[in-house]
Amino acid sequence: MNLYVQLPVRAEEKEYFLSKLPESIDAVFEIDITEATRAENIKKAEIVFGNPPAELLEAAENLRWVQLHSVGFDKYQNLKSEAQLTNMKGFYAQPCAETAVGGVLAFYRKMDWLGILRSRNEWVGQSLRMEMSLLRRKKVLILGTGSIAQACRKILSGFDCEIAFFGRSNPEARFRTPEAIIEGIGEFQVIINTLPGTEQTARFVSAEMIAHMHPSAVFANVGRGSTVDEPALVQALLNGDIAGAVLDVTEQEPLPNDHPLWDCPNVILSQHSGGGYAEEFKDLIDVFLSNLHKFLSHEPLENIIDPQKGY
Amino acid sequence: MNLYVQLPVRAEEKEYFLSKLPESIDAVFEIDITEATRAENIKKAEIVFGNPPAELLEAAENLRWVQLHSVGFDKYQNLKSEAQLTNMKGFYAQPCAETAVGGVLAFYRKMDWLGILRSRNEWVGQSLRMEMSLLRRKKVLILGTGSIAQACRKILSGFDCEIAFFGRSNPEARFRTPEAIIEGIGEFQVIINTLPGTEQTARFVSAEMIAHMHPSAVFANVGRGSTVDEPALVQALLNGDIAGAVLDVTEQEPLPNDHPLWDCPNVILSQHSGGGYAEEFKDLIDVFLSNLHKFLSHEPLENIIDPQKGY
Repeated sequence: MNLYVQLPVRAEEKEYFLSKLPESIDAVFEIDITEATRAENIKKAEIVFGNPPAELLEAAENLRWVQLHSVGFDKYQNLKSEAQLTNMKGFYAQPCAETAVGGVLAFYRKMDWLGILRSRNEWVGQSLRMEMSLLRRKKVLILGTGSIAQACRKILSGFDCEIAFFGRSNPEARFRTPEAIIEGIGEFQVIINTLPGTEQTARFVSAEMIAHMHPSAVFANVGRGSTVDEPALVQALLNGDIAGAVLDVTEQEPLPNDHPLWDCPNVILSQHSGGGYAEEFKDLIDVFLSNLHKFLSHEPLENIIDPQKGY
Repeated sequence: MNLYVQLPVRAEEKEYFLSKLPESIDAVFEIDITEATRAENIKKAEIVFGNPPAELLEAAENLRWVQLHSVGFDKYQNLKSEAQLTNMKGFYAQPCAETAVGGVLAFYRKMDWLGILRSRNEWVGQSLRMEMSLLRRKKVLILGTGSIAQACRKILSGFDCEIAFFGRSNPEARFRTPEAIIEGIGEFQVIINTLPGTEQTARFVSAEMIAHMHPSAVFANVGRGSTVDEPALVQALLNGDIAGAVLDVTEQEPLPNDHPLWDCPNVILSQHSGGGYAEEFKDLIDVFLSNLHKFLSHEPLENIIDPQKGY
């Protein structure tokens, strides 16, 4: 059975992967082939692991299963294929939560600023203390109730934070509509956005919502850049209308060199590294192998998605 | 009754303080007087709030109570005074724990490096992901079992870390001697030092202990700089024998401009800001006022210390 792997694995990861593959599987790795042979290799694959262009998947006549390496699947919304699709639901929740909460904590304890001071051999000392804040017992609003939101909640429990959620249909969410958020957002010191990029969430964090945030508020975004009115956010940061932001995602990525966010005070830009960690590929491979085992045993796969339905 | 306040409060904090003081108390603030009149003002004080030189306290004939603004009281070890002494036991535990754990998390999520990249408008993106680590489920050794250690444990519980303590007499400590630590330290990815600066703890974190740390280990110090063999630590960092360090304290503070720690890779230097936060003075004032109420009502004070005994 032909497997096409589109994941930039390193040598030891590839070796590990191959050592775990059943003999019945012939694997081709995108990193080993030329761009010119890519289409023909995908065309003869029964299984694909990764996120190749939709049109190449559509040309694969024998394709039976695609395991995406992402949670999002926007680019397969109109995919015409009989193959099953599975995603990495929940996989990036913990790293994203560590970047979100760790970013807010870094903001409170001035870790980015300490890095800059170290690069200058500059001791500031005592006066730094008055610039620090505590995360303990802060009121935190989490936009979304999915796996990243739950991972954030778990971490924040260690700081005795008071947590409220926004979710349209989740019974434990305190806020169900953007209007309700706008009315209540002023009481929160931390707002963590975990919303995915869909038509419904475009600029969900609106200029009006930002205008109602407390001046001491820190806004963290580990959802999608498209969910925020970025010009309004930049203006709020430049005016000091909110205290700061931790942005793992932005409308444009890479962020252009002359983008105003680079020069906004009090912003931590984590450059879409939020989901990452050194063992990421190894763990992705393990998720794939677990699903491959199910596939070969004709058991139902984990995390089947329907791109047309959007879930 | 004369109160001498040696705390660099800001205008609104002083106003708050004065608004809460009973009328029977005449307060003099060190920030309002000249250096020349300091000794005479302390001399006539019945109560002192702060940490003035021991000899000035000894000259205060009517002195009945000194509320230190610190936890440590090394410089009063040989104080000759009939006055009661109280310290700020536990006060700095949460901020120090947030700096220690937040520092390790910042190290894992590269927050200091992200700050430097932002200062250069430099997008790195994808390759950053492989440099990240997760704090989840890490094995953490905490040196000490006091209030900072407990605050660290509480925060780390939100990351499902496995925690072991060193403490000479605490029954829940897994390690009771430096020899036992040296034998077991290699299994820990994070080591947090909270030990105070005493004769017993001088260079407790020895060259041998550092040599037995795992190459992936991150060492955080929110105790005292004197408890670490700093030249050995610097060498381990320069050689890559350990992965990194988060140092709130160092042997010399301020750290001299040409100190090798400035140029060690993978070090976060938090410049003894660990105990600090914006509301620090306000909260110190509240602790003092609570003890003042007890003092005036002839109730036992909180956190009485005996500098000669060392506790």
